[in-house]
Amino acid sequence: MGGDFAPKEVVAGAILARKEHGLEVALVGDRTAIEAELAQLGEAPGSIEVVHASEAIGMDEHPAQAVRAKKDASINVAMDMVKRGVAGAFVSAGSTGACMASALMTLGRIPGIERPALGTIAPFTDTGILVLDVGANADVKPSYMVQFAQMGAVYAERVLGIRNPRVALLNIGGEETKGNELVQEVFARLQKTDINFVGNIEGGEVHKDKADVIVTDGFTGNVAVKVTEGVADFIFRELRKALTSKQHYKLAAMVLRPAFLQMRDRMDPGTYGGVPLLGVNGVVLIAHGASDARAIKNTLHRAHDMASSGMLDSIRSALGRK
Amino acid sequence: MGGDFAPKEVVAGAILARKEHGLEVALVGDRTAIEAELAQLGEAPGSIEVVHASEAIGMDEHPAQAVRAKKDASINVAMDMVKRGVAGAFVSAGSTGACMASALMTLGRIPGIERPALGTIAPFTDTGILVLDVGANADVKPSYMVQFAQMGAVYAERVLGIRNPRVALLNIGGEETKGNELVQEVFARLQKTDINFVGNIEGGEVHKDKADVIVTDGFTGNVAVKVTEGVADFIFRELRKALTSKQHYKLAAMVLRPAFLQMRDRMDPGTYGGVPLLGVNGVVLIAHGASDARAIKNTLHRAHDMASSGMLDSIRSALGRK
Repeated sequence: MGGDFAPKEVVAGAILARKEHGLEVALVGDRTAIEAELAQLGEAPGSIEVVHASEAIGMDEHPAQAVRAKKDASINVAMDMVKRGVAGAFVSAGSTGACMASALMTLGRIPGIERPALGTIAPFTDTGILVLDVGANADVKPSYMVQFAQMGAVYAERVLGIRNPRVALLNIGGEETKGNELVQEVFARLQKTDINFVGNIEGGEVHKDKADVIVTDGFTGNVAVKVTEGVADFIFRELRKALTSKQHYKLAAMVLRPAFLQMRDRMDPGTYGGVPLLGVNGVVLIAHGASDARAIKNTLHRAHDMASSGMLDSIRSALGRK
Repeated sequence: MGGDFAPKEVVAGAILARKEHGLEVALVGDRTAIEAELAQLGEAPGSIEVVHASEAIGMDEHPAQAVRAKKDASINVAMDMVKRGVAGAFVSAGSTGACMASALMTLGRIPGIERPALGTIAPFTDTGILVLDVGANADVKPSYMVQFAQMGAVYAERVLGIRNPRVALLNIGGEETKGNELVQEVFARLQKTDINFVGNIEGGEVHKDKADVIVTDGFTGNVAVKVTEGVADFIFRELRKALTSKQHYKLAAMVLRPAFLQMRDRMDPGTYGGVPLLGVNGVVLIAHGASDARAIKNTLHRAHDMASSGMLDSIRSALGRK
């Protein structure tokens, strides 16, 4: 029921995920609405499992309060399926805050993990670069960020398939002495871990394939990720304006259209699928609110990869309370 | 002597500034090197004033230490000319840290200003959007950020010519309750000032002409600005790759070249000139290290605008100690 184009695009994405990747998807939400969409998309009744939830949490509700008040909200019902082991992973394009709150209340943290972190996959390399935290924790302690780095390394290795992933700390300069007090302390602690810590990385180097995992606090990370999306939007919008500003550009622009679309696609958050919530006791992926069917399909595919990667066990054994 | 292409591009930029804007520029640094450049560029001896400085501060030196140790460094000599009133403004493409340290030691802060802030002009609107702080203060207190907002408003009004400029706080959500402890406190304080505070702005809205001044701490601001530059670089680089990937694209790409260059230009930090250091007792502008002659010219032009705008007096009367 979540996202700007729900349930239509979410249902369509689930169908695609089954057809293209053979995934078994259960659609959780208002049964009548979902079945109507399935029928409209030409699906035979029963081809995709529908689990009814009588409530839904809106984007404008207070996340934690709504999760507590609406026991039968689709987010809670789906999260409970993961807890009971009926589902291997949770995917939603709904309220990020509500998904995080429900994950914490229903699944809880992996014992030993202080705070979960939201990761996003920046589209600057073929495998993508994991950036975390991008919004779960506006205020952090150094110890949280060390765990983000460790969880990120496990994710990059297990899910992105990168051996001995390079982990960097987002900072405003290259030297150890750069940055605010927080990152200076995190730098010192990361040097003592057994992850492949490659030092500081500046905002202008994020796209340069210098790291596989970039660690930051949830405030800076959120700003950085949203600025990236905004700048990409801005450039494509202005380019379109420039390319239609003169009559003799139009034919040339038409010839180049496939190249533009390919580039635009690459910068589209939907291409890489949703953002993982790491540190909770289950596989949780949150898709972009503006997800179309393809973005939902990609998120479901990534959720399957995460669930079958052994990532959770690796986090438990690498960081969990012994 | 500062910047990646000094002294050549700096000297060429000074010549352009004189020719195109009628500005009087003094070039401070190694006299022999500067005069050789002037001669090579066809300038008659004495057409541009040269002030000799026997030392220069490198990009790899510790800023504050170098500024203290090298009394006759070009940065110090030029800053001293501003202090003595011999020059109306300081411009350098050298070490940002050294320029800031020299400005603080030589000019000092405007009485009442707790910390100076570096501002940058984001190229998303015709006038540009002032973002500050972008690197002078990695750790801040709420009171610093309130002053950044106030100084930014004065700058936007006086230098960018925007009446009653809209001032927004960079945050990870729109509501008052969003963000870390720091920005929540700043939000509450900004509401009590007499500036035109329009509330929070998210990273993804920075390009949307919702504010004329965007206030942030020096850590987040630096990351945001560098990410913006990095993403723009990345997109243009990848677009070029895509547009040369197929034989039949090439002619079309050639037709569109002027439009691409215009767009690229717009995103180029050099177009808008250097970043102002606000809160010190003088006009100080720091150009991008990669500045070419045009960027230097634009920075000198902006420096002249700042010096003649009455900005310093306005900051003194709006914020200075009474």
